[in-house]
Amino acid sequence: MPRTNTAPLSGTRDFLPLEVMRRNYVIAIVERIYQSYGFEPLETPAMERLETLLGKYGEEGDQLIFRVMKRGEKLQRALRNSPQENELADSGLRYDLTVPLARVVAEYQAQLPRIFKRYQIQPVYRADRPARGRYREFYQCDVDIVGSGDLLVEAEVIAAGARILQELGFDQPGDFRIRLNHRLILKGLMQIAGVASSLETDALVALDKYDKIGAEGVQKELSSRGIAAEAAHRLLQLMAEEPYGKNECLAWLEERLQSTAGAKGVTDLSQLLELLQAGPAGPHIDVDPYLARGLTYYTGPIFEVSIPGYSGSAGGGGRYDDLIGMFSGRSIPACGFSLGLERVLLIMEERNMFPSRLQGQPQVLVTRFDETTSVLSLELAHELRSAGLRVDLYTGQDRYGKQFKYADQRQIQYALLLGPDEHQRNVVAVKDLRSGEQIDVARTELITWLKERLD
Amino acid sequence: MPRTNTAPLSGTRDFLPLEVMRRNYVIAIVERIYQSYGFEPLETPAMERLETLLGKYGEEGDQLIFRVMKRGEKLQRALRNSPQENELADSGLRYDLTVPLARVVAEYQAQLPRIFKRYQIQPVYRADRPARGRYREFYQCDVDIVGSGDLLVEAEVIAAGARILQELGFDQPGDFRIRLNHRLILKGLMQIAGVASSLETDALVALDKYDKIGAEGVQKELSSRGIAAEAAHRLLQLMAEEPYGKNECLAWLEERLQSTAGAKGVTDLSQLLELLQAGPAGPHIDVDPYLARGLTYYTGPIFEVSIPGYSGSAGGGGRYDDLIGMFSGRSIPACGFSLGLERVLLIMEERNMFPSRLQGQPQVLVTRFDETTSVLSLELAHELRSAGLRVDLYTGQDRYGKQFKYADQRQIQYALLLGPDEHQRNVVAVKDLRSGEQIDVARTELITWLKERLD
Repeated sequence: MPRTNTAPLSGTRDFLPLEVMRRNYVIAIVERIYQSYGFEPLETPAMERLETLLGKYGEEGDQLIFRVMKRGEKLQRALRNSPQENELADSGLRYDLTVPLARVVAEYQAQLPRIFKRYQIQPVYRADRPARGRYREFYQCDVDIVGSGDLLVEAEVIAAGARILQELGFDQPGDFRIRLNHRLILKGLMQIAGVASSLETDALVALDKYDKIGAEGVQKELSSRGIAAEAAHRLLQLMAEEPYGKNECLAWLEERLQSTAGAKGVTDLSQLLELLQAGPAGPHIDVDPYLARGLTYYTGPIFEVSIPGYSGSAGGGGRYDDLIGMFSGRSIPACGFSLGLERVLLIMEERNMFPSRLQGQPQVLVTRFDETTSVLSLELAHELRSAGLRVDLYTGQDRYGKQFKYADQRQIQYALLLGPDEHQRNVVAVKDLRSGEQIDVARTELITWLKERLD
Repeated sequence: MPRTNTAPLSGTRDFLPLEVMRRNYVIAIVERIYQSYGFEPLETPAMERLETLLGKYGEEGDQLIFRVMKRGEKLQRALRNSPQENELADSGLRYDLTVPLARVVAEYQAQLPRIFKRYQIQPVYRADRPARGRYREFYQCDVDIVGSGDLLVEAEVIAAGARILQELGFDQPGDFRIRLNHRLILKGLMQIAGVASSLETDALVALDKYDKIGAEGVQKELSSRGIAAEAAHRLLQLMAEEPYGKNECLAWLEERLQSTAGAKGVTDLSQLLELLQAGPAGPHIDVDPYLARGLTYYTGPIFEVSIPGYSGSAGGGGRYDDLIGMFSGRSIPACGFSLGLERVLLIMEERNMFPSRLQGQPQVLVTRFDETTSVLSLELAHELRSAGLRVDLYTGQDRYGKQFKYADQRQIQYALLLGPDEHQRNVVAVKDLRSGEQIDVARTELITWLKERLD
């Protein structure tokens, strides 16, 4: 048999134990915080009907959907008629967690509370060109409140996001910033700059690149997208005018946007700021009237988390009142936040923000003297496990030296030795593999002894 | 837009919050026990190269693999040449967790400990005909020890499986049984019955159906598979002869199988029984010399968990020394156990074995008097959350009656009322939604009051 390529498929990853434990450490905090905010978990299948997925993410998105092939007779029939891509497939892998949420809301309306608060942490699949930090299978961590148009909703999802980052160790106001804006403010700014309303989306896309390409780049992009030079110029002028500080900025917007669509956006944002002040997100909030966020489906407040020193976002969200109802045939208000789990993990790794001992690593190794003492070792392991310890038991038949090396490789600090001699004296010899020291501990005191020393 | 079918794809399931919490309750126990046995978590991608998957599960298995289509130019090229199924796809969804483990062992040899103990809990995908209890996406819960041929390995994986079931509430010896056998015992029995060694696998497949089709059915199946009538007769005669009780059974096997391939199997099983006696699995063990298990890749001890009153298995496993090395080009001993998570969940549901309060359900609802008191409600919620409570905050603008109904639907017992009046008196009105009673609790004592009453 020719040697198979055993690397994971391009754009996907194997997570070896230490990586899984780090991911689980973060996910456990995410879940705990989301639950403390009253969100409940939802899970949907990896495969969705192709018709559920197609047409929801724009033309570019459709291309990135992994299609799952029909099988058996259905496939054969499709193959006979010089088929197109979509005729050969009957399902696709989920592209995000929002379309499945919309489907669930339509399907189970009667069973769900009238205000549905769910979190969902599952992998999604995109046939994107793999690159550093861009994967074809990656986790999304979404939280959404469906069924209420109140600003309290925004306040809650933003606060939950902030609490997660704080719990992960980003606990100073400067450790992460949450930029706030409102779709209507953007609309108002376009209006007073004189951007034709049919070109607003184009202007948004250009503005969204400001951080990457600067004022000059945006100006070029605006003009290439057909926005009149004068309007583009005024838009950038307005940007330069924007004062520093969130209250100053709001006052400036209020003055500028009165009697435009933006006035309502300013009022919303002022109220939202007041609500946010009462919670953990307060010290992290900035107002950024040019935050656009790529997606065009937002209808109200939008927000994005950035971690100073890193480009790109560590999370974001907003209100999108016209999307969740897509399968229900009625408008359903909704607002959500999505934590950039993969990016946060990368940053935490770079900054060494994980605890040195992770839940899941074994704490002690019960060694094995020889084949005749297997039962002794098993009994000892059983006793320690019943006391709540995480205990590895050496299952090979090797000399102690090799067993210690194994323990070391697994980052286990204590190796327990129980040969005929120790057994007779009713002790266990404990070897501290960091210090190399070895002492006898009375069998009856072993659990207490270990618990005092293990974190 | 025509109304889309919003049911999950045939054979897949949406898990609404209560179901997710139940699954998570079980999975948390599985993880805790596996960790207490020194196993570490592994995760692999849902998609694997087609060449990794094909040819590993027999012809029937190959048919059940979901294929993921090529994209773009590669697909177009394939389509131009009147293509076959496998030329249109470049990857497939993982069919089990064993082939990915074999791939990981080959790929990361240098990084893994010489004895690699991993657990893996992830969904797998099979294009099977959906039926009650048979899904196209379902979770497997595997635990394997790779790199040691010692019987302690079997003892550990069986003990871990037993501990999980005990922790889930199957805690009496009769709540679940673990049947033990050995491939060499089966081989020995075939030998003394006179089954041609080329027909051993066929005879195994027939024997495996004994519970379903009885002695007569097996006899028919044996003969239809070409096993000589005399051999078939002797095989069934041997089965009838088998004495009751595991020690009696082993003694009988020892006598019968001496000087056959089965002798080694009997020795192994005797030793394994002794090792198992020292741990939690002891009281659950039976010896069943006709347990065959479907898969032909087992090479040593095999075992299967059954829950009296339910047909089919709730888990099983065995030693398979020739499989894990398939990508490594060398033989690597391995032994594993797979918990039948979906079946166990079904049984627990039927028997009402879940706790009434699950981790993840909100414990209290902070209501909202009106729009002017939003900040008060937010501050109260924040305070309670910081104290570790799971707190839902009502985000709609409705009268108390509607808010209580919502709390009730979410199975929240306590609704907290904080209007201008309560605020002024520095109390919170607590409404017990089960009893309907409402009392004022001093704001400073609220956390203590609630913690005393919440589980």
